[in-house]
Amino acid sequence: MTDHPRGFASDNFAGAHPDVLAAVAEANDGHVPAYGDDPYTAAAEQRLREHFGDEARPFLVFNGSAANVLSLLAAARSAQGVICPDTAHLNRDEAGAPERIAGVKLLTVPTPSGKLTPELASTRIKRVGDQHAAQPHIVSISNATELGTVYAPVETRALAELAHDRDMLVHIDGARLANTAAALDVPLRALTTDAGADVLSFGGTKNGLLLGDAVVFLNRDLAADFEFVRKQSMQLASKMRFVAAQFDALLRDDLWLRNATHANAMAERLATAVKEVPAVRITQPVESNAVFAILPRQATERLLAEWPGDVPFHIWDEDSGEVRWMTAWDTTEDDVDRFSAAVADAVASGAS
Amino acid sequence: MTDHPRGFASDNFAGAHPDVLAAVAEANDGHVPAYGDDPYTAAAEQRLREHFGDEARPFLVFNGSAANVLSLLAAARSAQGVICPDTAHLNRDEAGAPERIAGVKLLTVPTPSGKLTPELASTRIKRVGDQHAAQPHIVSISNATELGTVYAPVETRALAELAHDRDMLVHIDGARLANTAAALDVPLRALTTDAGADVLSFGGTKNGLLLGDAVVFLNRDLAADFEFVRKQSMQLASKMRFVAAQFDALLRDDLWLRNATHANAMAERLATAVKEVPAVRITQPVESNAVFAILPRQATERLLAEWPGDVPFHIWDEDSGEVRWMTAWDTTEDDVDRFSAAVADAVASGAS
Amino acid sequence: MTDHPRGFASDNFAGAHPDVLAAVAEANDGHVPAYGDDPYTAAAEQRLREHFGDEARPFLVFNGSAANVLSLLAAARSAQGVICPDTAHLNRDEAGAPERIAGVKLLTVPTPSGKLTPELASTRIKRVGDQHAAQPHIVSISNATELGTVYAPVETRALAELAHDRDMLVHIDGARLANTAAALDVPLRALTTDAGADVLSFGGTKNGLLLGDAVVFLNRDLAADFEFVRKQSMQLASKMRFVAAQFDALLRDDLWLRNATHANAMAERLATAVKEVPAVRITQPVESNAVFAILPRQATERLLAEWPGDVPFHIWDEDSGEVRWMTAWDTTEDDVDRFSAAVADAVASGAS
Amino acid sequence: MTDHPRGFASDNFAGAHPDVLAAVAEANDGHVPAYGDDPYTAAAEQRLREHFGDEARPFLVFNGSAANVLSLLAAARSAQGVICPDTAHLNRDEAGAPERIAGVKLLTVPTPSGKLTPELASTRIKRVGDQHAAQPHIVSISNATELGTVYAPVETRALAELAHDRDMLVHIDGARLANTAAALDVPLRALTTDAGADVLSFGGTKNGLLLGDAVVFLNRDLAADFEFVRKQSMQLASKMRFVAAQFDALLRDDLWLRNATHANAMAERLATAVKEVPAVRITQPVESNAVFAILPRQATERLLAEWPGDVPFHIWDEDSGEVRWMTAWDTTEDDVDRFSAAVADAVASGAS
Repeated sequence: MTDHPRGFASDNFAGAHPDVLAAVAEANDGHVPAYGDDPYTAAAEQRLREHFGDEARPFLVFNGSAANVLSLLAAARSAQGVICPDTAHLNRDEAGAPERIAGVKLLTVPTPSGKLTPELASTRIKRVGDQHAAQPHIVSISNATELGTVYAPVETRALAELAHDRDMLVHIDGARLANTAAALDVPLRALTTDAGADVLSFGGTKNGLLLGDAVVFLNRDLAADFEFVRKQSMQLASKMRFVAAQFDALLRDDLWLRNATHANAMAERLATAVKEVPAVRITQPVESNAVFAILPRQATERLLAEWPGDVPFHIWDEDSGEVRWMTAWDTTEDDVDRFSAAVADAVASGAS
Repeated sequence: MTDHPRGFASDNFAGAHPDVLAAVAEANDGHVPAYGDDPYTAAAEQRLREHFGDEARPFLVFNGSAANVLSLLAAARSAQGVICPDTAHLNRDEAGAPERIAGVKLLTVPTPSGKLTPELASTRIKRVGDQHAAQPHIVSISNATELGTVYAPVETRALAELAHDRDMLVHIDGARLANTAAALDVPLRALTTDAGADVLSFGGTKNGLLLGDAVVFLNRDLAADFEFVRKQSMQLASKMRFVAAQFDALLRDDLWLRNATHANAMAERLATAVKEVPAVRITQPVESNAVFAILPRQATERLLAEWPGDVPFHIWDEDSGEVRWMTAWDTTEDDVDRFSAAVADAVASGAS
Repeated sequence: MTDHPRGFASDNFAGAHPDVLAAVAEANDGHVPAYGDDPYTAAAEQRLREHFGDEARPFLVFNGSAANVLSLLAAARSAQGVICPDTAHLNRDEAGAPERIAGVKLLTVPTPSGKLTPELASTRIKRVGDQHAAQPHIVSISNATELGTVYAPVETRALAELAHDRDMLVHIDGARLANTAAALDVPLRALTTDAGADVLSFGGTKNGLLLGDAVVFLNRDLAADFEFVRKQSMQLASKMRFVAAQFDALLRDDLWLRNATHANAMAERLATAVKEVPAVRITQPVESNAVFAILPRQATERLLAEWPGDVPFHIWDEDSGEVRWMTAWDTTEDDVDRFSAAVADAVASGAS
Repeated sequence: MTDHPRGFASDNFAGAHPDVLAAVAEANDGHVPAYGDDPYTAAAEQRLREHFGDEARPFLVFNGSAANVLSLLAAARSAQGVICPDTAHLNRDEAGAPERIAGVKLLTVPTPSGKLTPELASTRIKRVGDQHAAQPHIVSISNATELGTVYAPVETRALAELAHDRDMLVHIDGARLANTAAALDVPLRALTTDAGADVLSFGGTKNGLLLGDAVVFLNRDLAADFEFVRKQSMQLASKMRFVAAQFDALLRDDLWLRNATHANAMAERLATAVKEVPAVRITQPVESNAVFAILPRQATERLLAEWPGDVPFHIWDEDSGEVRWMTAWDTTEDDVDRFSAAVADAVASGAS
């Protein structure tokens, strides 16, 4: 029995898939060149190209923060801005890194369900050529979004058309891109390369790695000096093989898809179960591996106190009492069933 | 038999110690809070405090570049400079990150054997209070140095006294601090906390981890907002337990010391052997896990061609033909003996 | 007769007051030390201290952009944010400089009439201590605001109390502080030092200088290394006497107050006149030297076409058709009377 | 009689030429568009194009620091370096701005008389393509140099050929370019455009302006988004006409050339005179408006004490006792004659 019970706080609370750990162990053999000049990195990059196209230029980095911020740093120049939903991870949870490190201004837009549309993005394409205004240059979307919703390829394509028509670029924060691909049953490239994206943060950590994300340039011009950007930004792993081996394992034999499909299914199972609980209202479409819900505050408190583990889940919005329940590659049906029962109990206790 | 033969290029070419890998596997259990709020991180930080003192404030980061650059970022303000040897890793091998990311000017000094002295450092403490000049604020040394030499505690202490007398701070790049401690048979804190250092990059990667280094503030004031600096600089691991578990394994049961002692011994064995080879001149004192030597260029070429592996070792100075041979925690006596024999053969072949 | 007819586009379209020009000519005598070590700079700094208090630390810079951005740079550290109205010049018109140069995140708030209140500011004081979120650290207000409204001392004081209670600081963008002082008939220090502000951008350019603004630290701790910040940020004038002499002239004999009082009176005269024109609606309280109004679009076009000068005034909001009319120290009563008549004509022509 | 006696400290200690002041007064007429959209700016830019070629793209900024640093910012990307003499103003006197603001690493070279040669520059073109090393991208020279020496067009051309052969760019710090043109009797463009430079800082302040320098792109590609860089870097004057009118006056009727020719002649007169003084050794070729000399320390002290004014001249090197005497557009023959006599007296007094 584990000392660390599984909860629904985050896919970051989960560990690594056993196949990933096995790949790391297997790569732990002898001496290979450092800094990415090794066969493991070559293999991982090749797998990424298989998914995103021969023209893709992938670069492994340590985490999603780096994948996002360095994507913007590579794609933007002085006085340029990034149009994104106000709920974007970039805006809410990077501690101002896009501003200080990438030097961009975030041009945020309130959105329903965390999704940008061409109409919404257009509201921030203003004052083009006015030297006093940060110039809109990148449209950044998250797929899946922070709210668990997903963009269909056609939706991304529409944003890319808008962006390209205005000499702008498209960035996708794909920390949970696998979940979207699983949800929509489409290849990764349908969501990215084929939908017109220019640069992508491709997430590994949340989908079963120990750590590791990738910046993938679909527009090769943006990658011209990125190896220097990565190094200078302190994201070049010396023993790169250990990041690379994980990606190789993830992308080999569809482990990425199995993990994501499973996490999504667990979220759907949870949503289906709690939907039946009176006084629980699901607040966002459940399209990937997150369930957002509002339940009575007393029930939330009881659930937080009774479910084992330090942080069973997060309160998303203190004001409304909205909570976020995330599933992971290792969430079990039993976890979900016990948790949904606990939700029902917590609500019932409060009601009595 | 391995597909990846061991060479003498770098301790970064080596893999991870099996105990480290085992610790990662052991930590791969259930769900724990992300971003360092987990028991593994608490344990690793506690072990670091055991080594560096109760007042130390350790922060885990992904690599040595980050440990170095963020140490400077935390300790310097606008228009401040860092006095360091011109051979410092900071100056030669961080692609300008200290300048762009930490925003400091490097005030470099030519040094014998890569070591700064109070006299040498003083040559760069000029124009204090002159608004046109970057103000010397940090003295940064590497221990062990890029040239494999080491600072005894009394040498570091002398630099700290100079620095503190001038309201300056001391940073130690300790990517190979373990090697120095092993070489001098002193505790880690004798080289750092007790010698008056203010902030330290403590290396894990080169000494047997998969990846992971630490910024350790010995002067607590400097750590006040470092958790924000780390996050904003994209060095906060979400699944931090996997970095932490490695440090825990390294610092538990003196693995760090055994690894470093072994690597040092292998360098000494190599130096002793090649010293006997005619036409080989060892160019730096062999005090840690590096051997610098000049040998006939033909011999170098032959050796590079014949020793297995893509990059058997590095040419350090193209002009003089100086080479660097590094040993690692996993270098064997047999590796050394075969390599020194190969050196002798290569020299002999050239001479014939 | 002038080749450059006066309009109502901006107080930046106006030239310099003759007394200012005379002071520059008078300072153009012999050799004096460069970079501010001259008697003119000493005199200007002394006058600023007379207005803002003996504890004030004034630094002259070239323009208002620098005064604002360097105020924030001096007062903020990594991962800190600045709460400001979304209409703030900082947010709209500095081309992303606060983000890239000062490295701060702007935490914007929609406000009525461009004015922040403690209640509105509090909505952005969230997630304090959360390492993923930019930390609110500065409250920045403009007085007068971009919309021509003013903060009474008691209003600023209330914001300062909130800020200081939360260990935050207050910055005032005082590009038009003179206009507020004139409007409220209070000394400059009542609006700043005595109201609890920590740092101030004090505008000269818009109030009759050739060029020149000042950063004035009321909280001396923030000024500790500002001379280096100014130099490094390329805002240290070598022939500083020529900026200083202008400030001396402005603050001597209350020229600053006469200029501002006059500009305000002209705005009031204009507002009074156009208020009578049917189909013109004044949209903001006229409290300093700006009049915001909505008039029929055809009337706007006619007025822009017929009033002499390249840019007679600016359209503030393309969507609503709101226009901004600004008066300056050199606007005459005749200018106002002719312009208000032209407004009436333009409206009447459209209506016929 | 002046209250501010002329000395030999710096051409920055001098005031503005009367014609420049007159031009400012003349431009102080009515309202014109702010931020450079005015006829004075158009005229100044046109004059700059007349000197530097129709393809040149000039941008006015406030000072030489900005002209230099923004030239580099516009021309360099992440992880790039700038090869320059270690005596360069960029390296010695910009308080680390090239590093922090432009984000470049300075790759300095010791030089004789402050002048770079292709051979010297080549010593820093190393490790091209190595992601760990800042990549040499710009060769920056000062003409005239900090030591008063000048580059002939053929010398600059040789550096440009080296740079362009290596896909690098050439920047000229022309704070005193006028002095070189006067010294060599060549047009400004012979030293810059026709010699292959890519971007130029063209100095106005030191040659008789109140303030004002220019960034002039000779390689138009570098100018693509510079209006945004200038604004974001806080160097866009709102009342630009007052900077522009000065440049117009300077470049009209060859005032720039008369000023520089005169300053050079005064330096030559001074050098000729002091050369005769026993125990005075001139240490650099006197090619523009600076004289470097070593004289007995007692003589220096006496001269500093007796010549009127706060800072009669600067000690350049505390260790050797080398002093710098600079002449300006307003230095008179009488100034020179009295000063050289004072030098002789001071030396004689010490010798007695």
